[in-house]
Amino acid sequence: MYTPNLTQSGINVNVQKAKYAVRGPVPQRAFEIEQELKAGKEHPFKKVINCNIGNPQLLGQHPISFYREVSSLLVCPDLLSNPKIEEIYQPDVIKRAREMLAQIPGGVGAYSNSQGLPFIVSDVASFISNRDNAPCDPKSVFLTQGASPGIQTILNMLIRSPNDGILVPMPQYPLYTGSIALYGGKALLYELDEQSGWALTVESIQKTIDEARKFDITPRAIVIINPGNPTGACLPRENIQQVLELAHRENMLVMSDEVYQTNIYNPDEKPFISFRQVLLEAKNKEKLAGLELISFNSISKGFFGECGIRGGYFQMENIDPFAWQEIYKLASLNLCPNVLGQCVVDFMVNPPKPGDASYPKYLEESQGILKSLQHRARKLSAALNDIDGCTCQPVESAMYAFPKIAIPAKAVQHARDVLHIPADLMYCFSLLESEGVCVVPGSGFGQASGTYHLRTTILPRDEEFDEMVERFKRHHLAFQEKWKE
Amino acid sequence: MYTPNLTQSGINVNVQKAKYAVRGPVPQRAFEIEQELKAGKEHPFKKVINCNIGNPQLLGQHPISFYREVSSLLVCPDLLSNPKIEEIYQPDVIKRAREMLAQIPGGVGAYSNSQGLPFIVSDVASFISNRDNAPCDPKSVFLTQGASPGIQTILNMLIRSPNDGILVPMPQYPLYTGSIALYGGKALLYELDEQSGWALTVESIQKTIDEARKFDITPRAIVIINPGNPTGACLPRENIQQVLELAHRENMLVMSDEVYQTNIYNPDEKPFISFRQVLLEAKNKEKLAGLELISFNSISKGFFGECGIRGGYFQMENIDPFAWQEIYKLASLNLCPNVLGQCVVDFMVNPPKPGDASYPKYLEESQGILKSLQHRARKLSAALNDIDGCTCQPVESAMYAFPKIAIPAKAVQHARDVLHIPADLMYCFSLLESEGVCVVPGSGFGQASGTYHLRTTILPRDEEFDEMVERFKRHHLAFQEKWKE
Repeated sequence: MYTPNLTQSGINVNVQKAKYAVRGPVPQRAFEIEQELKAGKEHPFKKVINCNIGNPQLLGQHPISFYREVSSLLVCPDLLSNPKIEEIYQPDVIKRAREMLAQIPGGVGAYSNSQGLPFIVSDVASFISNRDNAPCDPKSVFLTQGASPGIQTILNMLIRSPNDGILVPMPQYPLYTGSIALYGGKALLYELDEQSGWALTVESIQKTIDEARKFDITPRAIVIINPGNPTGACLPRENIQQVLELAHRENMLVMSDEVYQTNIYNPDEKPFISFRQVLLEAKNKEKLAGLELISFNSISKGFFGECGIRGGYFQMENIDPFAWQEIYKLASLNLCPNVLGQCVVDFMVNPPKPGDASYPKYLEESQGILKSLQHRARKLSAALNDIDGCTCQPVESAMYAFPKIAIPAKAVQHARDVLHIPADLMYCFSLLESEGVCVVPGSGFGQASGTYHLRTTILPRDEEFDEMVERFKRHHLAFQEKWKE
Repeated sequence: MYTPNLTQSGINVNVQKAKYAVRGPVPQRAFEIEQELKAGKEHPFKKVINCNIGNPQLLGQHPISFYREVSSLLVCPDLLSNPKIEEIYQPDVIKRAREMLAQIPGGVGAYSNSQGLPFIVSDVASFISNRDNAPCDPKSVFLTQGASPGIQTILNMLIRSPNDGILVPMPQYPLYTGSIALYGGKALLYELDEQSGWALTVESIQKTIDEARKFDITPRAIVIINPGNPTGACLPRENIQQVLELAHRENMLVMSDEVYQTNIYNPDEKPFISFRQVLLEAKNKEKLAGLELISFNSISKGFFGECGIRGGYFQMENIDPFAWQEIYKLASLNLCPNVLGQCVVDFMVNPPKPGDASYPKYLEESQGILKSLQHRARKLSAALNDIDGCTCQPVESAMYAFPKIAIPAKAVQHARDVLHIPADLMYCFSLLESEGVCVVPGSGFGQASGTYHLRTTILPRDEEFDEMVERFKRHHLAFQEKWKE
């Protein structure tokens, strides 16, 4: 008799412990419903509005034309020997493709170096140098397929045993708790203060560290998501300074997830400031000496939203050369990040410049998208706050709102005793089944006990946006009515 | 005082144990030498010939035009509204791009479903059904970014503790031993028989299993690389049958790495036969009931060689639905394989057909590459066998030769006592420094104790191929001369 290996008792428990709500039961059910609608099955709505994931092009955002025009030449270099292409593309598009191809040995179909193509690594380093006004060594940059694999590589290295802990904000993007479980470590949650716009306080971090040490857990690193996912908060300089000092004092590496650094909606009062810039400021030279900082960025967010291409990078300060070799080796096991993704990283850090023929269109597209996101961020938080039993902090940045939802006691009880699921999951299922809006329950991100939230993107466009708000409001009222005492 | 976290004592030991020779010290030194040559530094040669990795486009192989023409339209759909494109591309290229885009929600810049785009998953299933003459359920297919991440996902699930073992051939592709170390399991090596053309024998597998059980190691899966990397051997049907029966008897999952299934150079005597086909044959219905089989494929190999695009898939038989959910969840943590890579998988399984305008060119390109590879496979093994102290088994398939190299006792002693490195690594460094040929030492793949090998690709083209053989021969003779008694 053959007994299967890949069964509940046969699969690594850490794999089983890892959870990832963004593609959890609600989005999976939404996918089913979409198939059912296609097959002609009746639902109370004609179309699912997907607000579960920051995937702007799925909701109709047009890609930045310059990125895609150059990409088409990179994937099909034979076009460059066809004179007709000069009637189709601006000269700077063609020039850029030629220049890049001259520096990509074998083209986009050849494996690159595991760290990434040297000229792109170098362009990333220049971008970071300029952004932070502090020189960046190209050796400190690794290209990746989106931010996630880089984050996983670092967590995998840091976690040696179940006694190693990683500080993660609550609420957080569940890649963190999921990956920490997968690598067998402990996620140490520090609570953000919802009342003060999801502010980060050192007291809360310190409390979490002290608690962990009581149980002999070593806090090895702290994850900061800035701009915040799912919170939408953007950290002020003093806060960053405090976190760095605390990390230095407590001997933790800092992982700074900065993938939303371009999605800033209140730039005068709440600009994006990188952790690296604060770390390298002159006054910190002594005080923060040697502090390990790794920052992550991605082509999936910003105004470009090139999620499906899979590209990103991480950059490291004060990392031991031994660790660099280990990172290189782990990167090598998967050979290299996809080369077109690397090229799109290059567009992100080295876009068209004033004077280039493509510049006006690039500016119009990028500014148009950012303005529209800013508009939707404000409109959504206002609309949510307008609903009884729903409160939403300002969406200063990123792509999400994380409103608090009042759920009647009877509904909470029903979810717990009858359905055996969190009450916010029941709420989200109900919203999906009755109105076809797909969002993710707050329990997937972490929330204070006894409170209920959900994460929705700000990404639906124009008519769909208003429709989404309308459906949401209608469901919320019906839900309150159904479960009132 | 701040003590860094990412140091030798601070990094997970399993990460440190993982080794990956294909991008190990020899290729890293080759990369340095290339930079030095560019900077004008003198070496005894003008150019490094890279034979360390199956990366055909790096060595000048032109990509399949149809793949890239359609890709250019997928990455820049605006081209489709420009009438000039009809003067550039064949109508079937344009039609294919339109049809695909209609089935890619949001285009290649949007995250897809974590399993992969449904129409591509379905095309892969049809391809497998036709290949094996046995229906394939689309649900059993997952798209991946090359074969490697899929292999890692399955190994990660199978390895629960250091007492879980995975059978791996010796010699093997080092992704396996590297990943098994990373996930904290035991690699159980079974020896292939070099004298009989690297034949796989059940006796050798059984011996490894029996030995493992003595030490309370549970063999959970067996990895077969067919066609063989680095051996170049292609397994006959009887052999596959024997392995499946053994795996069933010993309760092991079978992982069949079939990424070289199109690289077959003696198709009449040694055709490619998939493990799945043998598993599903009528006579095996009872005998192999329930045997878990996972097969891997990739766009990086074959005649397409689209390494840098990163695409692939795995397909599963007899896998528990619980395991499917866990696999889906792990895939979700990294959101989705890059969408263009998924599309190139679609070209691989659904290429131009007779009657399509692009078909003649497609046929000419694909057959041209395969014939040339076949020619080089034969020429290389003959040339290596022609050298005193070098013997090479026939290269029936895949992209590599794995010749045995006689290393004089004095050289072995010097490597061991003075350099403290394996003798074959010393040999490969010497070949690189004196002649600029970059190959990988056999010790990176595993070899019988007291024997020395190296892996070289068959990929250099035309003049470079002859040049490579010439350099290799010259070094080999000089090396023998230098270290003779």
